[in-house]
Amino acid sequence: MTHFSDLLIQKTKEKKTPICLGLDPHFNMLPDCIKKGKTEIQAIKDFLFEIIEATHDKVAICKPNIAFFEEWGAEGLKVFEEVCEKAKEKELLVLVDAKRGDIGSTCEAYARAFLTYPIYDALTINPYFGEDGIKPFLKYASKNNKGLFCLVKTSNPTGGEFQDLMAGEYLVHEHVAHAVSRWGADYLGESKFSLLGAVVGATYIDDIHILRQDMPSQIFLIPGYGAQGGKAKDLFAAFYKDGKGAIINSSRKILFASKEKDFAAKAREELIASNEEFLPIWKK
Amino acid sequence: MTHFSDLLIQKTKEKKTPICLGLDPHFNMLPDCIKKGKTEIQAIKDFLFEIIEATHDKVAICKPNIAFFEEWGAEGLKVFEEVCEKAKEKELLVLVDAKRGDIGSTCEAYARAFLTYPIYDALTINPYFGEDGIKPFLKYASKNNKGLFCLVKTSNPTGGEFQDLMAGEYLVHEHVAHAVSRWGADYLGESKFSLLGAVVGATYIDDIHILRQDMPSQIFLIPGYGAQGGKAKDLFAAFYKDGKGAIINSSRKILFASKEKDFAAKAREELIASNEEFLPIWKK
Repeated sequence: MTHFSDLLIQKTKEKKTPICLGLDPHFNMLPDCIKKGKTEIQAIKDFLFEIIEATHDKVAICKPNIAFFEEWGAEGLKVFEEVCEKAKEKELLVLVDAKRGDIGSTCEAYARAFLTYPIYDALTINPYFGEDGIKPFLKYASKNNKGLFCLVKTSNPTGGEFQDLMAGEYLVHEHVAHAVSRWGADYLGESKFSLLGAVVGATYIDDIHILRQDMPSQIFLIPGYGAQGGKAKDLFAAFYKDGKGAIINSSRKILFASKEKDFAAKAREELIASNEEFLPIWKK
Repeated sequence: MTHFSDLLIQKTKEKKTPICLGLDPHFNMLPDCIKKGKTEIQAIKDFLFEIIEATHDKVAICKPNIAFFEEWGAEGLKVFEEVCEKAKEKELLVLVDAKRGDIGSTCEAYARAFLTYPIYDALTINPYFGEDGIKPFLKYASKNNKGLFCLVKTSNPTGGEFQDLMAGEYLVHEHVAHAVSRWGADYLGESKFSLLGAVVGATYIDDIHILRQDMPSQIFLIPGYGAQGGKAKDLFAAFYKDGKGAIINSSRKILFASKEKDFAAKAREELIASNEEFLPIWKK
């Protein structure tokens, strides 16, 4: 089996796309045509299946956000599993966006939930508990060739409320960045990237430059491009040459490119357009 | 409908118990007798049903940790719902321990998942995203008379790694405490406690004194008593008079009091013994 980072780099390079297709199926934003005569969760399933069918050859990794499935209870989680399975059938990598974090013994259970099944390739995690809330994830990810993305600097408006407090010489999120770099150091692939990546919001461009230096071996998962306001060319700084070092999440801009019957075709067009915006990174 | 804090205070007082029964069904720790001839998740269900039957009249609130169900996938989440339903039938309050946190639009989905169904009364949340990752939870909790407990200071060994960084005049977790106090201020019940409570680990006794002053209107959820080393009398400082102001989580000490056929009876005995350890708080 291949190290997660090596596999991610290989697949993004093959398809010339740094985009991570965020699967956040806000029910209220689904096209009316997909909702008719169905339960909510069935509509979500049908919608995402069509999206995956229409986009899979132009993207390497997708990121279903489990919140939008959990809101429909156990039935929602069943559809979550089916969507992940569908994405795997189409040879996409599946990054579970769940932002889990807890004390060590509980993280063991979350790690078993998301880092042992073949339908999942990677998981987002929360650093608030410090190192012993991270170690179980590293143990399972390493054993099963899975990937992790730890929150460092988030893309939302109040992301800085605690993350940007100055503590000694560094901001809190820089302390987290240093820890992520340290935690991930023993888990490098052939590409020299760690299985432990970092979530770095696209809405704070200056931070990306600093954090690229603080975490040289981390693949960045960058949310906030598109709907949240981040621009493509500002994000080139996150990449090393040949497109390595980052993936760019795009959710609403692609998923909800059209609210009409052509939604899947329009999603594909929007994805292709996004890939083109990032063409310069492959020549860096 | 009654405000969550008022209901929690009323129920703990009636039964003279500040204990929050942590339902963390580590599969490997279940008694062998309950495992025989069943799937893992069926054994977990049967185990917790027996525990609830044996303890419900001596406790006011239980806290199932969703991680130990998620590890069994959609089927696990179905059992999670059944366990919560069973607890509600027995008139326990159900605090979902999920420690969710994300950007605002995703928190809306998590809030719908855990703060709109009758089988759930409250949810634990993570503050890393700052205020706009908290507001949706407050909106739904307020509308539906549910409760929230935000992580402030966690009980695990590395809880201080980021939480105890000194930032200006205060430690990071104190900044979080001040924010929790502020966020919760508009959501007080008749008891003058907010629907937004705080998770404060029992393993850091000095912090409890300070945090009690920083968050006068928060009900504290205190993990770390029992198996993690916190002692009852050290925790009296978390309470105001008449037992108000805190609930004490106890999981393993009660759930796994015996690994034999008498596990449910022993769990009840252990719960009663814990309630007795806290008798002085009702006379304060």
